[in-house]
Amino acid sequence: MINFDFVSPTKIFFGKGRENEVGKVVSGYGFKRVLLVYGEGSIKKIGLYDKIIKELSSAGIFVAEVSGIRPNPVSTKVDEGVQIARKENIDLILAVGGGSVIDTAKAIACAFYYDGDSFDLNLWKVKPTKALPLGVVLTLSASGSELSDSCVIANDELGVKQGFNTDIVRPLFAIMNPELTCSVSKYQTGCGIVDIISHSLERYFSPSDHNDVADSFALVVMKETVRAGRIAIDNPNDYDARADLMLLGSYSHNGLTSLGKAKAMPIHKMEHALSAYDVAIAHGAGLSVLMPAWMEAAYKSDVKKFADFARVVFNKKCDDDEECAKLGITSLRNYFREIGMPITLGELNLTKDDIPQIVDNMTDNGTHVIGPTSIKPLTKEEIIRMFNSIL
Amino acid sequence: MINFDFVSPTKIFFGKGRENEVGKVVSGYGFKRVLLVYGEGSIKKIGLYDKIIKELSSAGIFVAEVSGIRPNPVSTKVDEGVQIARKENIDLILAVGGGSVIDTAKAIACAFYYDGDSFDLNLWKVKPTKALPLGVVLTLSASGSELSDSCVIANDELGVKQGFNTDIVRPLFAIMNPELTCSVSKYQTGCGIVDIISHSLERYFSPSDHNDVADSFALVVMKETVRAGRIAIDNPNDYDARADLMLLGSYSHNGLTSLGKAKAMPIHKMEHALSAYDVAIAHGAGLSVLMPAWMEAAYKSDVKKFADFARVVFNKKCDDDEECAKLGITSLRNYFREIGMPITLGELNLTKDDIPQIVDNMTDNGTHVIGPTSIKPLTKEEIIRMFNSIL
Repeated sequence: MINFDFVSPTKIFFGKGRENEVGKVVSGYGFKRVLLVYGEGSIKKIGLYDKIIKELSSAGIFVAEVSGIRPNPVSTKVDEGVQIARKENIDLILAVGGGSVIDTAKAIACAFYYDGDSFDLNLWKVKPTKALPLGVVLTLSASGSELSDSCVIANDELGVKQGFNTDIVRPLFAIMNPELTCSVSKYQTGCGIVDIISHSLERYFSPSDHNDVADSFALVVMKETVRAGRIAIDNPNDYDARADLMLLGSYSHNGLTSLGKAKAMPIHKMEHALSAYDVAIAHGAGLSVLMPAWMEAAYKSDVKKFADFARVVFNKKCDDDEECAKLGITSLRNYFREIGMPITLGELNLTKDDIPQIVDNMTDNGTHVIGPTSIKPLTKEEIIRMFNSIL
Repeated sequence: MINFDFVSPTKIFFGKGRENEVGKVVSGYGFKRVLLVYGEGSIKKIGLYDKIIKELSSAGIFVAEVSGIRPNPVSTKVDEGVQIARKENIDLILAVGGGSVIDTAKAIACAFYYDGDSFDLNLWKVKPTKALPLGVVLTLSASGSELSDSCVIANDELGVKQGFNTDIVRPLFAIMNPELTCSVSKYQTGCGIVDIISHSLERYFSPSDHNDVADSFALVVMKETVRAGRIAIDNPNDYDARADLMLLGSYSHNGLTSLGKAKAMPIHKMEHALSAYDVAIAHGAGLSVLMPAWMEAAYKSDVKKFADFARVVFNKKCDDDEECAKLGITSLRNYFREIGMPITLGELNLTKDDIPQIVDNMTDNGTHVIGPTSIKPLTKEEIIRMFNSIL
């Protein structure tokens, strides 16, 4: 086990109707001027926007807004938020939504204290040192951003989607009512399930010696996500399945499943290149296509570990490790298909002709490998071969 | 799943040699005047005391001390600490030790702001509302107090050992070097293993509907503790096993394994009465005797859950739930025996003659049951029967 620092300080207010406490929670911390960050209108459709405005107003809290955050959120919205936050002397950024909204709020919170171009943070040109406090009302079980230290933003001009990690963007609190996710479409629910699995899967397959505890947590998170995900897809109003997914989303990406391990995220790295190439590709959909393909390319580097994945997550009884490892990959791909997620590039509206450009973007024209610290670093040629196998 | 609030804000500095950073960590938070709380000298024997004094002094930090904290820590030491903390204008309580030391530090941190008798907090006469910040240098994997909201103190005069729970006593930081636990005796290591198992076991067997995620975490914590515990007992210097136990101790009692569940701790309740009756009884030793006995008394209330315990924690393949449930109880008792822990009251130097007084203390002369919200509330008569079965 390697030495590590870890903190996950977010206070969770979990359960039915908890969004009605938003005014009490915000004023309980002593905040008075809030910047509300939200997406493209779904929180208005479900009545959540009105509820939150009413609760904050009743608590005497000033509210400014930045809205229209899209999936694969863009840096221009970060800039817009920073300007409003400065002008209105905001003391809390309140994200109401899923990962894109939360990540935008995180970027605003950091860029508030930085005078240059906000995207410098995501390009790692400058390290964030200070952030405004951040609260979340969660409406989607997927990214885990409500507890995580991660902030991924896209820049359409540069054609880049990139993240940075720092404990200072971990939210102060997260209000999590699973009922708010019952109206999420089957497709978006599926995208979330894939994302949750990916966060523990990439951690589990990161190289390490003797990390039984972290690996056991990762396996259990994946196993439970497969189980609860199936129920939520079949019966969108199953509260307990929605509650399980919400908890699993948070704990799959807060660091619990990689305690004492180095973390490599090659599948996420590849997917960010895919979504940056075509912003219409949902993060979870891209991951769904890439995850089993990456596993096929990588499993020979640690057959035993892939076999254990199949045994625990898919309850496979096979004795032979090689056979079991392959069965795990097939099981995951079948599961993604079963919950209605894509498993080929074609389903993402990509063809053979798109591959060279995507892979050049991904590898900086073949000058670096994907996953240099992963169990199987992949060269440009290996990625092209992988992509051709999932057309 | 029930509604819940949860926060586990403690920052962990984990790994080899991390205690050498204590000065940097403490001054990094801006603290200047520390009350060092420690036990009966073992930290001097292993050179840890000198190291910490040196590091704190080098960082320009003033240090006062309260020492001689014994297992089953007493309220008189809390009072002593409060007086020193007030006199010396302390701004951080730094516990160097295991659960007894940390719990004493927690009680000092709260009683600092309370003018009455410090034990009023443990008697629930008054609710703590404010606490001094608290840091930990952990030397024992057992209580999980380094991350928990719990504070258990004994009062010899009253013959009572009782705890209170509040998020305000969760430590700000915990420095956790597993190497410091390699010198812990086989017996104390065993006591710790039993305590770690008990924290998730009592949560797992607390009644609830649809808490698959919390229950899965609990099962994995118990399974991994059984595994790593065996290694640490056989080879005290196995760093990875010691590291696993340290992490498991923290996460078995911080609330992760009961997210969204009510929590009943009947075995702890009974053990506290045992340790209060005879302070020579180590908490882990008392639990080791009582845990399998409680399981025998309770398993018929949820046979399926006890069967799953056996299947996951002890890898039992049995199909019949009843048979499997019993096998799980036997396996746990055998495991405790294997790691050198007591499984009878006799091994705790208790006889048939001690039972009436202990059970009267436990149940307030039979006026209340043990575990009123547990799956199997136990009357005075049932407890006497249980105690007679483990003489």
